Amino acid sequence: MANVIEPKVLKGFRDFLPPAEIARRWLIEKIEASFRLYGFVPIDTPALEYTEILLGKGGGETEKQVYRFTDKGGRDVALRFDLTVPFARFVAQYREELSFPFKRYHIAKVWRGENTQRGRYREFTQCDFDIVGSSSPAADFEILLMMRNTLRALGAEVSIRINHRGIFNRFLKNRGLAERSVEILRIVDKLAKIGRDETGKLLEEIAGEGGAAEILRFITPGENFEDTLRSVSELAGGESEDTERLKLLRGYMIETGIADSFAFDPSITRGLDYYTGIVYETFLREDPSIGSVCSGGRYDNLAALYSKEAIPGVGSSIGLDRLIAAMENSGRLRSRPGYARLAIACLREDQGGVCQALAEQFRQRGIACEVFLEEGKLTKQFMLAEKKGEGWLIIPGDDPLHSPLTLRDLSKRENREGLSVEDIVSLI
Amino acid sequence: MANVIEPKVLKGFRDFLPPAEIARRWLIEKIEASFRLYGFVPIDTPALEYTEILLGKGGGETEKQVYRFTDKGGRDVALRFDLTVPFARFVAQYREELSFPFKRYHIAKVWRGENTQRGRYREFTQCDFDIVGSSSPAADFEILLMMRNTLRALGAEVSIRINHRGIFNRFLKNRGLAERSVEILRIVDKLAKIGRDETGKLLEEIAGEGGAAEILRFITPGENFEDTLRSVSELAGGESEDTERLKLLRGYMIETGIADSFAFDPSITRGLDYYTGIVYETFLREDPSIGSVCSGGRYDNLAALYSKEAIPGVGSSIGLDRLIAAMENSGRLRSRPGYARLAIACLREDQGGVCQALAEQFRQRGIACEVFLEEGKLTKQFMLAEKKGEGWLIIPGDDPLHSPLTLRDLSKRENREGLSVEDIVSLI
Repeated sequence: MANVIEPKVLKGFRDFLPPAEIARRWLIEKIEASFRLYGFVPIDTPALEYTEILLGKGGGETEKQVYRFTDKGGRDVALRFDLTVPFARFVAQYREELSFPFKRYHIAKVWRGENTQRGRYREFTQCDFDIVGSSSPAADFEILLMMRNTLRALGAEVSIRINHRGIFNRFLKNRGLAERSVEILRIVDKLAKIGRDETGKLLEEIAGEGGAAEILRFITPGENFEDTLRSVSELAGGESEDTERLKLLRGYMIETGIADSFAFDPSITRGLDYYTGIVYETFLREDPSIGSVCSGGRYDNLAALYSKEAIPGVGSSIGLDRLIAAMENSGRLRSRPGYARLAIACLREDQGGVCQALAEQFRQRGIACEVFLEEGKLTKQFMLAEKKGEGWLIIPGDDPLHSPLTLRDLSKRENREGLSVEDIVSLI
Repeated sequence: MANVIEPKVLKGFRDFLPPAEIARRWLIEKIEASFRLYGFVPIDTPALEYTEILLGKGGGETEKQVYRFTDKGGRDVALRFDLTVPFARFVAQYREELSFPFKRYHIAKVWRGENTQRGRYREFTQCDFDIVGSSSPAADFEILLMMRNTLRALGAEVSIRINHRGIFNRFLKNRGLAERSVEILRIVDKLAKIGRDETGKLLEEIAGEGGAAEILRFITPGENFEDTLRSVSELAGGESEDTERLKLLRGYMIETGIADSFAFDPSITRGLDYYTGIVYETFLREDPSIGSVCSGGRYDNLAALYSKEAIPGVGSSIGLDRLIAAMENSGRLRSRPGYARLAIACLREDQGGVCQALAEQFRQRGIACEVFLEEGKLTKQFMLAEKKGEGWLIIPGDDPLHSPLTLRDLSKRENREGLSVEDIVSLI
């Protein structure tokens, strides 16, 4: 293979062949349709931004993962690693033009140079939806409702586990652990991964034996939503705005008949994220082990880096790749080789014009119709059509536009002769 | 503004606010729907690739424009600058898995660090569609038909100007100018930009006075398609496979009733591109001066860099940004502030749950319905709904799920009272 460059993609990057891409597009279209039903509007932002905008005053973990370089104009630039930071910049930049509460969605690729050994990709798609400019519990609830109903529209039954950062913080303060809250949040966030025993050991190092036991008690859900709320409320030193908000949200869930989709899980912390209010993660009923497929929370001040005006909001993000993996595992991903159900066989290449004219009669009725372009044995054309997922093949006559047509039913392996375009439209 | 980072994007990059992004998505969805009607299937490839893959053995003009850097693993990588090169790599890499002829589309962003003074963007969207693995004129024709019909589906009447590289090359050989063909193609490609006189002068430097006159004569279209074909055929030394193919394609155009959309323009060369057969550019009838909105051609060997197997093909690319600019100029771009036509006013924030339950009754019928989240004067809510393009606002009663509803018609500025959900569905 001298003088030929080996065709390959970068580690952690992927090509999508048609069946995979058709499935991805189906999912994205369903998600987008659901967002639109709620009156959410799309935005788009550049893949490449000033590094200072994306990383702010230092990035820590993020900085290590970001694709960063100097462009030909000497600018320090980077590929976006999420859609939240560009959205914060966007809201600050256009705050005079937008009407608040502003409800937007953004479905786009992001890039992180992560360790690929954990099955992570370096290029992946996020589907973010946020409401900014409202502190109302009604905004929290709308996001929760959208999470549930959007995933249901994809055929996924979910359990959304919610918590409130405020209650956790009050609890830690109550126990004199406020100053260790970052470390504690980081440990608790690993609970599902490392298990209860290991979590307890790590907590003991910080909070002592008694403190660790209290924290474990705090993060253990009770019998049901109400029960857990009562328990954490007590441990946090009584009721407050945070518990009142959860109570209100619970009432909304019951009023809309979706209470079964939600659980109160005080171990949900969303690690070191910038959330200040409710936080949540979403697990698939049939495959919770795959992890959260949709997570988010409420934040006090989205655009703090770029604006002195505090802009509160609440949002969530669907991890499309993980969702696809789960749906593939369960065989529920609608994958197919192509969009056309109908093809026209090529008996003579000089019929290239009239066969297209025939195909247009179907396309104008909204029926996807492929025209085969190369002469070949009919049996070979049957096979090609089947491979492409086309259930029907038209065998044209000498004069494709005027002779009666023969229709091959590829699943039944039988022909029907003497048909018109109208006959075929009603048959397929 | 101390301690605050100024929110801005890189030069040549753009944010899309909802009205612009809604218009873009509308166009992309229309284009995609059209591609699917022809049995074309989508693929996707990474934004980032090995530089060697993208630039091959040296890039010239392209190399200067590409966003290239070394990643944290020491790899020489670059952002894709078009969708053709990644497609060539893709076809070479998966040639065993794909069934040929393979008809694919790919709508995605590409990046070029171009001079932004010419109104060019550094991040822009391409919509490519190609048929590979077929040398048949039927494939050429299918691409031409799709170009015309896809743009018509967007409401754009077009004139597609086609030429054949083979005729041009034969003509140059015939005139003893074969060795200067690269320079001559480059000059002729600028004809529309620099005008006939300037082109003549530049040609004289290469081909002498007589040669320049001959070339100008060659590239000047005749009365009509047939007339031009006859003329260039003579100048090129008679009929050959290239003129035969154009004659065949012309016959197909007439058979399908689309001949008026096409002109034979021997000055179309597509510069230094890798085309070997027909080439074409597409101009909007109402605004040809904006330049070609959809161009392409036939190539002998798409994946030559990555495979020893020659893979012929034919394809085209819609320049979405230029098309949008043209449609904006003509006021034909369907832009709107949002997707919802209906909103529910917020009279009391504690109705957040039941108002969502009410909204779900519309959403389940496929009607996008926004729920307002913040209490406020009704007149203010009327204004907000109008700003968001929602023509109708529901004013709920004390019990939103059971009390009769009031519907505000925002365009007529009048209320209708005592309505049910069904009444509203039939009214809006």
